Amino acid sequence: MIDMTRIQFGILADTFHTPVKGEMAFLPDFLILVDECGDIAATFTADDAEHSVYVNALRDASKLNIVEKGQFLMPGLVDLHCHAPQWPQAGKGLDLPLYDWLQNYTFPLENRYGDLAFAEPVYQDVTRTLLANGTTSAVYFASIHREASELLAKTSLEQGQRAFVGKINMDNAEQCPDFYREPSVEEALAETEAFIQNVRGLKGNEHGLVKPVITPRFVPSCTETLLRELGKLVQQHDVHMQTHCSESDWARDYALQHYGKTDIEIYAEAGLLNNKTVLAHSIFLTDNDVAMLKEFDAGIGHCPLSNMFFANAAMHTRELLDSGVSIGLGSDIAGAPSPSIFRASFDAVTHSRVREDGVDTRLTAGERGVAGSRVSFVEAFWMATAGGGRVLNEKVGVFEKDFHFDALVIKPSMLGNLRIWPNMDSPRDILEKIVSLGQSCDIDKVWVQGKQVK
Amino acid sequence: MIDMTRIQFGILADTFHTPVKGEMAFLPDFLILVDECGDIAATFTADDAEHSVYVNALRDASKLNIVEKGQFLMPGLVDLHCHAPQWPQAGKGLDLPLYDWLQNYTFPLENRYGDLAFAEPVYQDVTRTLLANGTTSAVYFASIHREASELLAKTSLEQGQRAFVGKINMDNAEQCPDFYREPSVEEALAETEAFIQNVRGLKGNEHGLVKPVITPRFVPSCTETLLRELGKLVQQHDVHMQTHCSESDWARDYALQHYGKTDIEIYAEAGLLNNKTVLAHSIFLTDNDVAMLKEFDAGIGHCPLSNMFFANAAMHTRELLDSGVSIGLGSDIAGAPSPSIFRASFDAVTHSRVREDGVDTRLTAGERGVAGSRVSFVEAFWMATAGGGRVLNEKVGVFEKDFHFDALVIKPSMLGNLRIWPNMDSPRDILEKIVSLGQSCDIDKVWVQGKQVK
Ligand SMILES: [Zn+2]
Ligand SMILES: [Zn+2]
Repeated sequence: MIDMTRIQFGILADTFHTPVKGEMAFLPDFLILVDECGDIAATFTADDAEHSVYVNALRDASKLNIVEKGQFLMPGLVDLHCHAPQWPQAGKGLDLPLYDWLQNYTFPLENRYGDLAFAEPVYQDVTRTLLANGTTSAVYFASIHREASELLAKTSLEQGQRAFVGKINMDNAEQCPDFYREPSVEEALAETEAFIQNVRGLKGNEHGLVKPVITPRFVPSCTETLLRELGKLVQQHDVHMQTHCSESDWARDYALQHYGKTDIEIYAEAGLLNNKTVLAHSIFLTDNDVAMLKEFDAGIGHCPLSNMFFANAAMHTRELLDSGVSIGLGSDIAGAPSPSIFRASFDAVTHSRVREDGVDTRLTAGERGVAGSRVSFVEAFWMATAGGGRVLNEKVGVFEKDFHFDALVIKPSMLGNLRIWPNMDSPRDILEKIVSLGQSCDIDKVWVQGKQVK
Repeated sequence: MIDMTRIQFGILADTFHTPVKGEMAFLPDFLILVDECGDIAATFTADDAEHSVYVNALRDASKLNIVEKGQFLMPGLVDLHCHAPQWPQAGKGLDLPLYDWLQNYTFPLENRYGDLAFAEPVYQDVTRTLLANGTTSAVYFASIHREASELLAKTSLEQGQRAFVGKINMDNAEQCPDFYREPSVEEALAETEAFIQNVRGLKGNEHGLVKPVITPRFVPSCTETLLRELGKLVQQHDVHMQTHCSESDWARDYALQHYGKTDIEIYAEAGLLNNKTVLAHSIFLTDNDVAMLKEFDAGIGHCPLSNMFFANAAMHTRELLDSGVSIGLGSDIAGAPSPSIFRASFDAVTHSRVREDGVDTRLTAGERGVAGSRVSFVEAFWMATAGGGRVLNEKVGVFEKDFHFDALVIKPSMLGNLRIWPNMDSPRDILEKIVSLGQSCDIDKVWVQGKQVK
């Protein structure tokens, strides 16, 4: 018998999760016991012999939280790639070419975060908005400014969001504007080390809800020296690492032309890859790249909506899922406008379908696409939850013993478009509808580490 | 001077509309005078000499409606293609092939509308939900049932939505299930003629807010006789016509194999095409097809999100916009899940971008897509408003004298994701953000024919 004094609460709910890639588990009246630290102490399905014992014990202790029928519990969503300072840019400039978008809009905007008074309301709003959309774990690119990046970490912590925050590193004078790059490798490293210590030492962060991430922007914006020195920090601090990887024809070609190597090879040789690595995009990977990713257990942050604008091609998501490499989803705010990981899940499905069928009506059906590309809604939901957790090497994304209780309750709102019809929708239909139509108004409650934050 | 007793109200607002395809007009403090019928009597820009005269006259008459700064007025959205009875299916079954989706899910669902008690709550909800999403003009496929189709027309009228409603015609025993097809051509025609009269004669429909639409489902589901007889009705009643056109490889090939003609050629020869025709999809058109569309002034209902699932290719939207053919947007509920025409606008942009760049990473950039395909956000907004109005041959979609006052006010809600930042967003940025991120919670007010319905 579990020591009930150690249990903070139990929650009884019709529950979705996907512990196995591609397989949906729907568990009516699933019971989850959450301990005083916010971790899952035990779970019971309705037909477990002890289910009613614990339901009664929790009820007697006034610790039973019952989610009404017609509402659904699911793991919190994981956003593996979000540029928090670009939030004011979300939904604008998408008609521009990537280079103009970066140089004329994004870099000048990011540079304003040297001013904490500018940063503060944006970081308040972006963390709150992601939480409202069900994102319980967010991996953030901040800006090159250490103090503003620490403010983002502090803000996430105060909002109760599990966050992985990176101060950006970029120092290549040929690719970075004068007004927005590190003054030297030495200063970049000193600031990065200070950032790691300061985030780990944030008051209230004793359990590591918010973690620092080493963040070279991408190959073109960094000197080789900076990449290698950051690689040493990754090894030394056993810390998360995030960067962009082979996002477009231009990015892939830049690496080949300047290094004679792929992005993955460059990152691997710099010592940057580990089992807590998030590589955003990763569109143009070689077979050897994929093998190296698996060797390091490094993961991919797939950002399908951003890809439709800036990647020049569709992700080979089907093959990556089948390869067993770690893969989850990212919003890529503001390369794409939507802060919703349900939306990213839906777009992962649609872009895979467009890849399967192709686009060009002048070609025959057989020539047009890449046969067998489709990704299912259940696989997309797996990426949004369990897959993202696996990329981060964090115990989130499924409801199992010892996992953190990061969760949300879906309650379809008449203010939105999600409708569940009595006797017409199977559990699988309901999950697909939530992914397809769920908006923040349909997310009634959100918990992170056992604490209700919406 | 305009007779102010004939003016119902004036509205003063920062206003967006797109009278010219591809050109955004942003009109600060635009003044629109709406007459007692709900039509636009006059408009004044802030620098018109009479602007202040009418503002004062309206204020004195307590007829001035001022939209606060930070909120925006725009024309109501036009949904050219929505299967109202499929609303319960929105967001499910999209992993299925089209044939299974139709035969096993859609046809059995549509057949339930023989029961008015089943139909009533669905039709209440779908019309209300589309209005909440800013759709002031909706073109509906109903089901084969005359009475339920009339109920949909009546429901739209009661909700105050401008609607174009079609009772479906389908009689080909080889393609339609036994349980869901017309018993005979004669009965189909009799029911269709009764439907036209009954909708036109609905109590409260004296001004024709709701119009009947002749609706052969698509080539494969109709006999040639039925198509020709429906064509006679189109000519005789000068009525709107809607159908599906060249939606997929299969649909295109069906026409070629069974008739040796394209869908457009078949519809033209049957007498179905006129200047109030909505052809949903129209993916695989020949140059001759496009020329015929222009000759008849028939229009296209482009449904980009549905295309990503079921069309097998991307719409040649860029070429169609440049050709001058009439084109607007459709949700294609439930071939796609979203009832939002902002979402359809956004997807028209994204699918055009994916078409431009292509999908297959194994090909070189030059081989991968269709260069020059991109559609801008402003063009997409034009299709969602003015373009849709032009397809319908209705005076909706722009704010000009004699047009119906169908409009909405955008007020970004903290419940949603749309954020406008002080001093950071240009009018064009704001329009792009509304299209990219606007949800029903951001649509504060909706008018149809001068009447506020949200
Ligand atoms: Zn990025
Ligand atoms: Zn359709």
